[in-house]
Amino acid sequence: MSVLALASQAPAPEITAADVVLTGDRPTGPLHLGHYAGSLANRLRLQRLCRQFVLIADLQALTDNAADPGRVSRNVMEVALDYLAIGLDPARSAIVLQSAVPEMAELAMLYLNLVTVARLERNPTVREEIRQRGFARDLPAGFLCYPVSQAADITAVAATLVPVGADQAPMLEQTVEIVRAVNRLAGAAVLPEPRILLSTMPRLPGLDGRGKASKSAGNAIDLRDDSDTVRAKIRRMYTDPGHLRVEDPGKVEGNVVFATLDAFDPDPTAVAELKRRYRAGGLPDVAVKRRLEEVLEALLGPIRERRAQLARDPGEVRAVLRQGTEAARAQAARVLDAVRGVFGLARP
Amino acid sequence: MSVLALASQAPAPEITAADVVLTGDRPTGPLHLGHYAGSLANRLRLQRLCRQFVLIADLQALTDNAADPGRVSRNVMEVALDYLAIGLDPARSAIVLQSAVPEMAELAMLYLNLVTVARLERNPTVREEIRQRGFARDLPAGFLCYPVSQAADITAVAATLVPVGADQAPMLEQTVEIVRAVNRLAGAAVLPEPRILLSTMPRLPGLDGRGKASKSAGNAIDLRDDSDTVRAKIRRMYTDPGHLRVEDPGKVEGNVVFATLDAFDPDPTAVAELKRRYRAGGLPDVAVKRRLEEVLEALLGPIRERRAQLARDPGEVRAVLRQGTEAARAQAARVLDAVRGVFGLARP
Repeated sequence: MSVLALASQAPAPEITAADVVLTGDRPTGPLHLGHYAGSLANRLRLQRLCRQFVLIADLQALTDNAADPGRVSRNVMEVALDYLAIGLDPARSAIVLQSAVPEMAELAMLYLNLVTVARLERNPTVREEIRQRGFARDLPAGFLCYPVSQAADITAVAATLVPVGADQAPMLEQTVEIVRAVNRLAGAAVLPEPRILLSTMPRLPGLDGRGKASKSAGNAIDLRDDSDTVRAKIRRMYTDPGHLRVEDPGKVEGNVVFATLDAFDPDPTAVAELKRRYRAGGLPDVAVKRRLEEVLEALLGPIRERRAQLARDPGEVRAVLRQGTEAARAQAARVLDAVRGVFGLARP
Repeated sequence: MSVLALASQAPAPEITAADVVLTGDRPTGPLHLGHYAGSLANRLRLQRLCRQFVLIADLQALTDNAADPGRVSRNVMEVALDYLAIGLDPARSAIVLQSAVPEMAELAMLYLNLVTVARLERNPTVREEIRQRGFARDLPAGFLCYPVSQAADITAVAATLVPVGADQAPMLEQTVEIVRAVNRLAGAAVLPEPRILLSTMPRLPGLDGRGKASKSAGNAIDLRDDSDTVRAKIRRMYTDPGHLRVEDPGKVEGNVVFATLDAFDPDPTAVAELKRRYRAGGLPDVAVKRRLEEVLEALLGPIRERRAQLARDPGEVRAVLRQGTEAARAQAARVLDAVRGVFGLARP
C-alpha cells in the first residue's frame, strides 16, 4: 500500500474523535521522504480523525547535540516549515515547541523519581541508540533519561495514542509504566494510558540502498530539495548492480527506485507492470527513474511551492508555533496540577 | 567555639554584601539541634552579611521519598515555621519552595545534557548516600540526577556562596563543573562560579552517641520540642557508660551532654570548669544535664514561643513563602533566559 493510499484510507476503527495523538520530530535536519513515508503521511490522516499535537522536540535533540546546539536551533523553523508545507493544518494539529513548554520539564523531573536507573539502562531503544552513537562512559545523563522526558511530553497533552515504529515501541512501554506508577500512587486514573499506533509502513531505504533513509547518513531526498537536486539524487539511486545491459532481467527486491515507487506512486497497477517488465529484461533503469521523477515531482512540487510561500512570512510561521505551543501549555498545566497533587505539592 | 559565638562572630573577610548565598533543607522532618549547630546558626549570621536564598527542597526530598510523598508535603510548613521561629528574616533571607520554581526544573533538564552518567555515578556524596539508603538496582533516576538538580538550584539564583559540610563538598564540585561547561559553551561568563563556604562546626552527635543527630535516626532534639520532651531527651542522653559512681572520674570525649554544651553554652569558661570537675570525679551526670537543660531552654524557649505564635497564622507563613519564591523566580527567569540563549533556545 502506498503512502498516498494510506493517507486516503478509511478511518481505522480503533481511532475515535476523542483520541489525542502525540507525535513529533527532533529538529536536527530537514525532513525527508523517509519521514514522509514513515510518519508525516500518517499525521495527515490522523489530523482528520482526532486532535493531534506535533512536537518539535528541541530539548530531546539537545540530549545528543549539546556540544553543537546551533544544529538544533537552526532546524526548528525548517521543521515547522516542512510541517506546514506538507499540509499539517494548525487548526487540527497543534505544532508545539518542546522547550517552550516548561510544564514538560517539571513533569519529567517528577517522573525521574518513578524510574530506576537500571530500568533506563535496560531500555532496548536507548541501548541501540547508545550503540549507534558510540556513547560509552561519556553517555550524557540527559540521553539516558530521555525516555522519561518523552513520557512527560506524552502525558502533558494527555495523549491516548502515540504512533511509533517498531523500534520505538519500548519507549512507549516506559511511558505506560510511568503512567501506571502515577495512577497507583494516586489511587485513581489521573493519567490516561497511551496506546501504541504501530506504523505498518516499511522503512524507506536510503539512496545508496544501505539501511534506511536518514538525516545523519545524508542518503535521503529532503522535502525541500529542488527539482534538480531530486533528479540528481534519483540518478545516483541504488538499483540492481547486476542489471548491466538493458536486455538483462533486473531485480526489484532491494532496488531503491522500486521501493520508493512502492511508497509514493499513486498507481500501484502501473508499478506492478513496470516491475514485470524490469524483471523480464528490456526495461532500462533510466525509464523507471523517469517514472519516479514524475511521481516525486507531483508530490514534492506543491510542497515546495507552499514552503517557499510560507518562508516569505516567518512571522506567520512563528505565530502558528506560538498558538500550538499555547494549546499544549494549557493542557499541560492541567496535567501538571493533577500530577503535582499526586505528589502532594502545593503552590505556596 | 559555640554556635552562639559563631552567630555573633565578626564578618568573615571573604564574604561581601555582593555575595548571594544558596542554602536549604529537604523537608522530610522537623529541624533539630543538629541543624541549628550545623547550618541554621550560620544562616542567621549570613543573612546579616549578604543576600540569602533558603530553599525548602521538596522536589529533592521526593528523590528518595516518592513512595511516601506525604512525608514531604507534611513537612514543608513545619520547616518554614522552624526557619521563621529561629529568626530567619524574610527581608534578608528569601524562603523559597523549590517545587514552585519551574525555572529550576527547566535548568536541570538542560544541565542533564552536560553531565555524563559515569560522572554522576562517581560522585562520592551520591555513592555514600546510595549506600546509606540501601539502593542497589532500584536506584531512582531522580536520585542519581539530584546533583544536577542542585546545580540548577544554585545557579538559578546566581549564588556565589554555598555553605556545605565537608561530606557535601563533592556536590558543589559538580555544580562548578556544570557552570564551567555552560560558560565554555557560551564563550563567556554567563553563570558565576559558586564558592564553597565549608562548615567549621563539628557534627552534633545523636542522643545515643551513635553517629550524628539526624531526622532519620530519630536521635535528635527537635527545635519544636516542648520543655518536657527536651528534658526527657536530655535524661536519656549518652554520657560516659564507665561513670557508674558519682565519685568516679568521668570521660568528656564522646559524651553527648558535653558535646551539646560545647555547641550551645554561651559561657565556654563555665563549660571548661564543668569538664574539669567531671573528669576529676564527684560531679554527677545529673548536674551536667541540668546545666544543659537551662542552656537549651534559654535557646529553645523563645524559638518555641515564636513558633507557636506563627503557627496560629498559617496565611502569614504562606505569604512569606510566596514572596521568597517570587523573588527566586524573578532571578531564576533571568538566569534561565541566559542559559536558554547559550543552547540557542528561543521562544516562538
